[in-house]
Amino acid sequence: MAVETRNMRKFLNDPSQVVKESLAGLAAAHSDLVRYDAAAQIIVRKDAPKRGKVALISGGGSGHEPLHGGFVGMGMLDAAAPGEVFTSPVPAQMLAATKAVDGGAGVVHIVKNYTGDVLNFKLAAEDAADEGIKVTSVVIDDDVAVQDSLYTAGRRGVGATVLAEKIAGAAAENGADLTKVTDLVKRVNDRARSFGVALSSCVPPASGKVIFELPEGEIELGIGIHGEPGRRRAALGTASEVVDVMVEAVVTDLKAKRGSKVLVFVNGMGGTPLLELYLVYGEVDKKLRKAGLEPVRNLVGSYITSLEMAGASLTVLELDEELIKLWDAPVHTPALRWGV
Amino acid sequence: MAVETRNMRKFLNDPSQVVKESLAGLAAAHSDLVRYDAAAQIIVRKDAPKRGKVALISGGGSGHEPLHGGFVGMGMLDAAAPGEVFTSPVPAQMLAATKAVDGGAGVVHIVKNYTGDVLNFKLAAEDAADEGIKVTSVVIDDDVAVQDSLYTAGRRGVGATVLAEKIAGAAAENGADLTKVTDLVKRVNDRARSFGVALSSCVPPASGKVIFELPEGEIELGIGIHGEPGRRRAALGTASEVVDVMVEAVVTDLKAKRGSKVLVFVNGMGGTPLLELYLVYGEVDKKLRKAGLEPVRNLVGSYITSLEMAGASLTVLELDEELIKLWDAPVHTPALRWGV
Repeated sequence: MAVETRNMRKFLNDPSQVVKESLAGLAAAHSDLVRYDAAAQIIVRKDAPKRGKVALISGGGSGHEPLHGGFVGMGMLDAAAPGEVFTSPVPAQMLAATKAVDGGAGVVHIVKNYTGDVLNFKLAAEDAADEGIKVTSVVIDDDVAVQDSLYTAGRRGVGATVLAEKIAGAAAENGADLTKVTDLVKRVNDRARSFGVALSSCVPPASGKVIFELPEGEIELGIGIHGEPGRRRAALGTASEVVDVMVEAVVTDLKAKRGSKVLVFVNGMGGTPLLELYLVYGEVDKKLRKAGLEPVRNLVGSYITSLEMAGASLTVLELDEELIKLWDAPVHTPALRWGV
Repeated sequence: MAVETRNMRKFLNDPSQVVKESLAGLAAAHSDLVRYDAAAQIIVRKDAPKRGKVALISGGGSGHEPLHGGFVGMGMLDAAAPGEVFTSPVPAQMLAATKAVDGGAGVVHIVKNYTGDVLNFKLAAEDAADEGIKVTSVVIDDDVAVQDSLYTAGRRGVGATVLAEKIAGAAAENGADLTKVTDLVKRVNDRARSFGVALSSCVPPASGKVIFELPEGEIELGIGIHGEPGRRRAALGTASEVVDVMVEAVVTDLKAKRGSKVLVFVNGMGGTPLLELYLVYGEVDKKLRKAGLEPVRNLVGSYITSLEMAGASLTVLELDEELIKLWDAPVHTPALRWGV
């Protein structure tokens, strides 16, 4: 065990137990908010199920922390089903999460568009329906970089997931019904676009090896959160040049009206310091205004990561008054908290 | 310019402008909380100065984000004076910050124990006093790893800085006077101990070179936040073994009574994913309980970083009822927010 971990710059005990041990640590740190069901490998809101409240769950491979376990709590997710690193959770986890949070008003599955996640959530939803639970599913596919990818038919789901979880979670907390909460997830996905870039690979704990080779001085434009190839490799330019590519890709695809209010999410992939993320935010803000959009809300930090990958993604969400109100509503989770 | 940045995995325009551009981005993202005085290179709380409120400022080299600019806002700092990366700010910055926030009730300087910071804050305090501003200074020196270091006589100041800024900032927000706020900073420093470890170096933007060599499979025990050497190098063991060293170092020096309530701060150095930080928190929590301490509050994340260094530090603060109440009080800054 020690021999394996010695090939990496990581805090690990048994690499095969990293997800379980991390989830246990999350629950120990935030026992006021969540509990960890180790048998089912799910993180559940402490006070779930809440009678009459629509519940939201999400899940997917680990290695993208704080997504999703860090977003379980008041005003966001009711449960998360984390798979092993970069590996879909199994249907039994999603079913256990669904059953743990169902309060009779239905459960929304927020599914990032990766083939394994989509398939396993579908099976879990069918099983839950067989047990009399109303389930709706929304597949998030906001990444404009590429059509089809290593693990995905269609576009990948990335940053919009965080925004949908926050916004739809606020509506559910306020008593919205299953149709309304589901529609909000869809609306956020419809009105959000993302594009990511990588300046380095990351190293999954189990293998101890980089998942792709990216020489210093090169950038992968349109990277996926598991290192899936993007649109192209290029020589790394200035931050301004890189942000030009990101903003152009997102704005062109979003097709928002001039003067639209937007939420700007500058997300770190894990290994890029906040010093740089704020520099990037400054560039994004200027370029979006030049493109006729008005950033009125933002989120800057590492919220949907690829372990310690150096890089960043940009998500732009076109807002309306209802989305702004739901974004501003109180939230209390391990990773996002305000208003409470 | 582009040529220089091509040797690094970083988002940069002109490397000599990285701090200024990042601060401008911070202020653009959080214009509801802070403003950036570019001429003075300081981040100031938007509503400063507040008549009759004791003000708190801190500062130091950049590269440790969100420290300190990310902690300016309601219930924490009134201003921050960021130097260039790993370089002390000049006295003129600290003086400008002091003058910008003085509301007549005095200004507390929170100074991490690095020779340049201590010297420059001292000069600024003298100049401020000459202008009729009441200034007190507290030097933070919570790092138990080594006595004297590359840039420090005595112990270095690390994680306790964040906790002191939060706790004393809450008291100032509640109307505490200069003596009381100053004493709280001292008390947090007296009752907190820290110890950090590195699994990799980091790369300052200006040089584009690692600041020390640390082969994979080795760990620097007792690292400083600028890569200053610690107690020793060792073969990287399991997370449990590494945490044993950290907890032992901190607990032995803190000498808290059995049964003491503590705040546990597991801090990432920048390049260590949250997946691992929560795993580390789980180990720390168990080992502290075994040592007879009771973790009742915690902070897990990358709050006092060394750019993209892989590693973590542990800070343990012995609490009392007053410190708990001040920790729980509302705070609204770019990096820490709750209760509002």
